Amino acid sequence: MSKVRAAGFSISLDGFGAGPDQSLADPLGHRGTELHQWYFATRSFRAMIGEEGGDTDGVDAVHARRAMEGFGAHILGRNMFGPVRGPWKGDEWTGWWGDEPPFHAPTFILTHHRREPLVMAGGTVFHFVTEGIGAALEQAKAAAGDRDVKIGGGVSTLRQYLAAGLVDELHLAVAPVLLGRGEALFAGLDLPALGYRVLSSEAGEIARHVIIGR
Amino acid sequence: MSKVRAAGFSISLDGFGAGPDQSLADPLGHRGTELHQWYFATRSFRAMIGEEGGDTDGVDAVHARRAMEGFGAHILGRNMFGPVRGPWKGDEWTGWWGDEPPFHAPTFILTHHRREPLVMAGGTVFHFVTEGIGAALEQAKAAAGDRDVKIGGGVSTLRQYLAAGLVDELHLAVAPVLLGRGEALFAGLDLPALGYRVLSSEAGEIARHVIIGR
Repeated sequence: MSKVRAAGFSISLDGFGAGPDQSLADPLGHRGTELHQWYFATRSFRAMIGEEGGDTDGVDAVHARRAMEGFGAHILGRNMFGPVRGPWKGDEWTGWWGDEPPFHAPTFILTHHRREPLVMAGGTVFHFVTEGIGAALEQAKAAAGDRDVKIGGGVSTLRQYLAAGLVDELHLAVAPVLLGRGEALFAGLDLPALGYRVLSSEAGEIARHVIIGR
Repeated sequence: MSKVRAAGFSISLDGFGAGPDQSLADPLGHRGTELHQWYFATRSFRAMIGEEGGDTDGVDAVHARRAMEGFGAHILGRNMFGPVRGPWKGDEWTGWWGDEPPFHAPTFILTHHRREPLVMAGGTVFHFVTEGIGAALEQAKAAAGDRDVKIGGGVSTLRQYLAAGLVDELHLAVAPVLLGRGEALFAGLDLPALGYRVLSSEAGEIARHVIIGR
C-alpha cells in the first residue's frame, strides 16, 4: 500500500533540521550543510548531481538510496523551493535545482500565492497548491498511485504533516553535530502522543538512521 | 588537570533528559527509565545496586564505567536528590539511594533551604549549598582535589552549568526512544555559541555515546 514518508531527513544532535539565516547563497542556512555530510559521499547523492562514483554499500549509502526510491510524488514547503517571499514574481524562479530537478515526479509546492504549473526536464512538474497541507496530500496521493508520497521538507512543512498525523514513516538521519540555533524539529511536537515510536535505529558511517512510525 | 564533567547523561532522541511527572513512585518521570536501558545491563550499574554480573566489554559498558570513575565530588540539583519541595522537613529524607548512595564522595546539593551536612555510609557526605551554582562548584572543586567534579543532573542543573560555560566535558547517551514531553536539554541553549562542539560519537549496543567539549 502506498505510504506517506519523510526520508533522509537530516537533523542535528540538538534537534535542528536546518541552520538559521537561510538565503540565496546559503539555502540550508548557516552550517546547514554539516547536517548532510553523511549523504554527500553516497552514490545516490553523486548521481543526483550528475557525478560518477560514490559509496553504495555502507549503511549511510543504503539509507540514502532508500530515501530516494519508490516515490511517485513529492511535497515541499515554499522555503524549500526557493527564497522568494510574497507573491511570485513571474516565472523567473524555478527552484534551487536547475533545469532537471532531482524529483522526477509531480512535486507539490505549498504556497499562499497562486502560480501555474511548471514543467521541468526529467519528469518533474511543480504544482503550486494554495489550499493547505490536506489538499496537497490528496493531490500528491492521486498523482503517486501505488508509489509513496515523500514529504520533502523543510522543517515547518514536516512538522505540520506530523502534527496532523498524516505521516506514516519518518526516516531521520541524526548528524553528530550541534547547531545551537535553527529550525527545531521536535519543539512542542509530542510524537508519542500522536502514536509515533522508534521502529529501528542503526549507526551509519557518519549519521545515525532512525526510523519512526506507528 | 581536574575537569568538570557530566557523564552518562541519558537523553531521548527528541532531546528530553527526563520524562514528565516526576514523583516518589516514578523518580525519573513517566517513561524515564527507557532512557537508561543502555545502562541497566552493564557491570557498572549491576555493581552499583549490589548485584553480580553485567557486561564489561561492550561500548555501552565502557562508557558506563567511564561515567562512574574518576570523580572526587558530585553536584546534584535538589529534584535529583528527592521529591521534597520547600523547606526541609527534618532529616527524614536522605536521598533516593538508601543508606549507601553510589557517590562515595562529597556530594553538593543545590537548594534554597539550609540544612546540615548528612554523612552516609560508603564515603558519601551530602552538603546542602544555598549560595548558587558557582559556590557549589567552588566547594566541589576544593573537595575533589586532583579528581574530576561530576555534574550529576538533573536537566535543569546541567543546563545552568552549561549556560554558564562551567562544564568542560559532557558525555550524552542518546537513547533510541521518543518521549514527546519532559525536560528538554537543548531548548534555548546555543551550545556552539558557548564554545562547545561534538568531539566524538560512538554507537553503543543500545545508546549512542556523544562526547561534547571545547
